[in-house]
Amino acid sequence: MISPSTRELQALDRAHHLHPFTDFKALGEEGSRIVTHAEGVYIHDSEGNRILDGMAGLWCVNLGYGRDELVDAATAQLRELPYYNNFFKTTHPPAVRLAEQLCRLAPAHINRVFFTGSGSEANDTVLRMVRRYWALKGKPEKHIVIARENAYHGSTVAGMSLGGMAPMHGQGGPCVPGIEHIRQPYWFGEGRFSQGRDQSPAAFGRACAQVLEQRIQALGEDNVAAFIAEPVQGAGGAIIPPQSYWPAVKAVLAKYDILLVADEVICGFGRLGEWFGSQYYGLEPDLMSIAKGLSSGYLPIGGVLVGDRVAETLIDEGGEFFHGFTYSGHPACAAVALRNLELMEAENVVARVRDELGPYLARRWAELGEHSIVGEARSLGLIGALELVADKASGERFARTLAAGNLCRDLCFQNGLVMRSVGDTMIISPPLVIRHEQIDELVALARRALDETARRLNTNTTVRETRT
Amino acid sequence: MISPSTRELQALDRAHHLHPFTDFKALGEEGSRIVTHAEGVYIHDSEGNRILDGMAGLWCVNLGYGRDELVDAATAQLRELPYYNNFFKTTHPPAVRLAEQLCRLAPAHINRVFFTGSGSEANDTVLRMVRRYWALKGKPEKHIVIARENAYHGSTVAGMSLGGMAPMHGQGGPCVPGIEHIRQPYWFGEGRFSQGRDQSPAAFGRACAQVLEQRIQALGEDNVAAFIAEPVQGAGGAIIPPQSYWPAVKAVLAKYDILLVADEVICGFGRLGEWFGSQYYGLEPDLMSIAKGLSSGYLPIGGVLVGDRVAETLIDEGGEFFHGFTYSGHPACAAVALRNLELMEAENVVARVRDELGPYLARRWAELGEHSIVGEARSLGLIGALELVADKASGERFARTLAAGNLCRDLCFQNGLVMRSVGDTMIISPPLVIRHEQIDELVALARRALDETARRLNTNTTVRETRT
Repeated sequence: MISPSTRELQALDRAHHLHPFTDFKALGEEGSRIVTHAEGVYIHDSEGNRILDGMAGLWCVNLGYGRDELVDAATAQLRELPYYNNFFKTTHPPAVRLAEQLCRLAPAHINRVFFTGSGSEANDTVLRMVRRYWALKGKPEKHIVIARENAYHGSTVAGMSLGGMAPMHGQGGPCVPGIEHIRQPYWFGEGRFSQGRDQSPAAFGRACAQVLEQRIQALGEDNVAAFIAEPVQGAGGAIIPPQSYWPAVKAVLAKYDILLVADEVICGFGRLGEWFGSQYYGLEPDLMSIAKGLSSGYLPIGGVLVGDRVAETLIDEGGEFFHGFTYSGHPACAAVALRNLELMEAENVVARVRDELGPYLARRWAELGEHSIVGEARSLGLIGALELVADKASGERFARTLAAGNLCRDLCFQNGLVMRSVGDTMIISPPLVIRHEQIDELVALARRALDETARRLNTNTTVRETRT
Repeated sequence: MISPSTRELQALDRAHHLHPFTDFKALGEEGSRIVTHAEGVYIHDSEGNRILDGMAGLWCVNLGYGRDELVDAATAQLRELPYYNNFFKTTHPPAVRLAEQLCRLAPAHINRVFFTGSGSEANDTVLRMVRRYWALKGKPEKHIVIARENAYHGSTVAGMSLGGMAPMHGQGGPCVPGIEHIRQPYWFGEGRFSQGRDQSPAAFGRACAQVLEQRIQALGEDNVAAFIAEPVQGAGGAIIPPQSYWPAVKAVLAKYDILLVADEVICGFGRLGEWFGSQYYGLEPDLMSIAKGLSSGYLPIGGVLVGDRVAETLIDEGGEFFHGFTYSGHPACAAVALRNLELMEAENVVARVRDELGPYLARRWAELGEHSIVGEARSLGLIGALELVADKASGERFARTLAAGNLCRDLCFQNGLVMRSVGDTMIISPPLVIRHEQIDELVALARRALDETARRLNTNTTVRETRT
């Protein structure tokens, strides 16, 4: 029995609220789950259920829920100066202090930040910056940005154009001109089948970098401005590239003098056990887009970290840069982000992910790889994925009509775990403050959902399909 | 003498912070003004100066600074649930309650809201929605959006493409395809000169609507999805259209079955003395983009209010809508916006702007129209503009090289008033809680800055130019 107060909120929600990335009609028929409060790694709904949040909100609540220090930082700044802009030659202490702190944490060649309100606005800004850079360098024709299929770079028109999500392109077009997409380094999904089943991950990683080089040659290096990529793809399915991939990509970009943009919206701020995913892979990006973990999601803020090469050109040769947002560097959001970074340092969060939590998750998560419907279990730092398969030996997928991933996701939720599905890939990205026993609980809950998913699907396994 | 703490912040700002819409190099040489705290309609800087904020932050701090009720709303929600997403069939009470409240305040035919983090993201979303609507109606070729020159619709690539700011197009392109721009209803800037100096504002307003009709005919009505416009242009220069304009535009849109999108980011939430600018002009927009005054800028939030015609199609025929933002309906931001709307109702803010403050500002502002370098003083509700001219009789402008507007803006700031310049148009948009004696102060400070601007320019008036 659903409580009257839940029913009332569901009715209002159905009547007035269009949710992001949702089938409005189907949700209206089902009714929303109402999340009411949260603490640590747990959220609670209006029906009294406690749920372990294996996604840290939406890849963002890195320090967990219920952090009074972050609330206090917001409150103090809101009382002092709730808003002022950074236009017209003014600024305020929180924006300046956050800029300083971010540049201290970033790689040495990155010393400036341009603030935005979100990761979408950050990647949207990136597109303007790389094109402006080459125009100032006297090469306006060097304007094409190469991105990857199944990449996620936000949901503005420019963000979705950079991203490689076919359904978004299908609904949101026409896209921004001058963006090209190449193969993603997704070995389980594509690599094993790309040139016969015996291709190794290492060979596949190098092949993906070759695809980049071929595309540059086809387009003409004088027409290509930048390559944008997430160090580890997040929304695409927690896709961890083969170790051969990034070194080979770096070499290609250097050979043709093409800028590298690292989308650090998910990987940044400790997710991979370094401050930035670029550091894990030894990248030296010209630009890094940031958001999410920057403030642990407590308040909305994003930005672009700008390396010296691009920054110095924009500063010395650019004149006015005609771009920015009302909430660029919003004082309350900047104050919360600053406090968030201070707490991460004080609590040694990044090193703990690298040295303790990441390795522990890797060990426990790998055990799920033994499950009958799991074709691969992978993790890096505190991001992980499980590939659901109908046949463990061959890696054959479930028939698409079975929607195995969505089924597993719903069963997880019913059993007290937020695990997200991307097709038939189950993904996690828990708060970086998760404890060992909570990792145990997460794995146990995931296993139970896998068991139940397998049971449900076994009654339907006559229909299968082979992924080609 | 600048204090050491100001110097330190200025140095860090210069070293690390790329400001929005700024010439970074010039600002670095000059040094930023550091705004430290604020209360009511006043901001304070790190050098002890108190400044009357005639721009309400950036058109947003409608309830003024120092509102403890808004801070308390943020604090309470951050403690309860600092973040959760609205994806994957979940929501939370603040998003639902805010959606309900917004739909109660909006015109009767508008009953749904899609949340975003900013006005830029809202207008970016609008573009997706109108194209999706017509695609679902079986008319995918009906995809062109007509906007206006000198319009401002935000700074994402799609927002700046919809906007009509030539400098932004010049730096940010290539723009999103399928967007057309037509003449703006700017009588002082363009109307007086468009067909000889004897054209009346009313005739000019109708002529602008005719331009819209001609463009629709040229493009083919089957190719035109929507017309987007601010009821009163804000960033373009507080441009109040002739009263003949909107009725004529409404008739054209109805004749050709083209959607109307009202950008209410500035006009919404009381600026014109109605909840929405559309209500002042009797518009019935299919979509309204909102932000800024929605939360009085205390926390970042925006959205799209979706009329029944579009909403019902998206819901009943659309399946999943592949669009949204991590911070769509952020709980703390939604809680602050909700409290802001409650306070506006409790304090009768909108009616006070309509019945008291707007008329009082209009009377006092008109007095500035007598100044020797003011060619026109106009206001509506609590938005206003002054047109700076070299010759009052002919309306001749100052030579562009004199940068009269920027000079006047800087003199205002030095004298304790934030007034913004757009070219040689000075604009104000003060908090909606400004008191009568503060309006008197604003007018007195503006007059002093005009006097000083005139004095400075009189030494340079050999160079003039005629606006053509």
